[in-house]
Amino acid sequence: MALPLLQVALDNTTLEDAINSVKLYGHIIDIVEVGTILHVAEGIQATKTMRELYPDKIVLDDIKGADAGKTLAELCFGAGADIMTAICSADINTMIAMKNVGSQYGEYKDVQVELYGDWTYQEAQQWYDNGITQVVYHRSRDAELAGKTWGPTDFEKIGKLCDMGFKVTITGGLKASDLHLFKEFPIHGVIGGRSIRNADDPAQAAQAFKDEIKRIWG
Amino acid sequence: MALPLLQVALDNTTLEDAINSVKLYGHIIDIVEVGTILHVAEGIQATKTMRELYPDKIVLDDIKGADAGKTLAELCFGAGADIMTAICSADINTMIAMKNVGSQYGEYKDVQVELYGDWTYQEAQQWYDNGITQVVYHRSRDAELAGKTWGPTDFEKIGKLCDMGFKVTITGGLKASDLHLFKEFPIHGVIGGRSIRNADDPAQAAQAFKDEIKRIWG
Repeated sequence: MALPLLQVALDNTTLEDAINSVKLYGHIIDIVEVGTILHVAEGIQATKTMRELYPDKIVLDDIKGADAGKTLAELCFGAGADIMTAICSADINTMIAMKNVGSQYGEYKDVQVELYGDWTYQEAQQWYDNGITQVVYHRSRDAELAGKTWGPTDFEKIGKLCDMGFKVTITGGLKASDLHLFKEFPIHGVIGGRSIRNADDPAQAAQAFKDEIKRIWG
Repeated sequence: MALPLLQVALDNTTLEDAINSVKLYGHIIDIVEVGTILHVAEGIQATKTMRELYPDKIVLDDIKGADAGKTLAELCFGAGADIMTAICSADINTMIAMKNVGSQYGEYKDVQVELYGDWTYQEAQQWYDNGITQVVYHRSRDAELAGKTWGPTDFEKIGKLCDMGFKVTITGGLKASDLHLFKEFPIHGVIGGRSIRNADDPAQAAQAFKDEIKRIWG
């Protein structure tokens, strides 16, 4: 299998901070993510800027769209994003609308469903059947702050989503030293955030993720 | 009971368009909403601008936050929003974090939960028990485009949410002529969007909503 891709979520509150941060490790990673926080702060300009800075990387726009899929997709893909996110509670028609706009921009354009709360496998099957084949399995940042950790329920869900055929990306306070927990799964992507952005040496931290990915899945 | 508040969702794709639009009817409405589309396009500057333009109106920031509640709330309330939205699939800790930040900015600051997909009454009770007492009952724009209309299931859910004590705001392609459908419920707010923004005479359209609200609930 292909190695899992390394994505870094730029959850900075200003574009200036995001640029200063990503310049340290952007050359090492596979996917530059305009995080929800950055997007809420700076709008679509953040997406345009990352597209300009990294013409050869995958740019992902984590807007977690819930509705008005066509208009949101025109904004995101129009600004150069390769992938945009939808929230799992969005109507299937919203996801389909995003996907349809994406396909007008190119075959690589894609939609990822962000899994929060009480989604069901029935819904997941509906996404898959409609060509929405990427999901992000998320340990909520706030759940994490409240002490919730990775556990058997997470691994069961991740395994089932992989078995269903989804490209599964994992995220939620991940450290390079956590990755071995997922070694039995054909993980599509790994999102690092604070553990890379806030490291003393962010480039070294990003490289540590890459090395660990290669060691486990290589 | 107090009359339902009239909110207009600014779902424009540029701030310039939003300003040109809201100036036509902002004096008539109760709540100026920075719609998700506008926020995705222009970022937090849109919120700051509406706060400056309408110092005496309620400004609502419809970001549909799913995670990182504290940081998102600091952005939204910090920019002058009175109300921000969370998506129903967010962890309860995300909503609580938003609410806590809001209370630091003033007693009127509030969090509204956007109801999409498969939320449960058990979750709703948990929101209410934690002081999250506003919800937006939403007919998805994309579901609407796919032909789904208001029906008995919607009315049953709206009634139950009102009975639980929630302040319920309704939205989703509403026209003034639809409002009578909800007359039996103590509706807290009514969101008009395209039917006001895109009217030949937006001020007249906003006034028609106000008049119909008064006629039904006055």
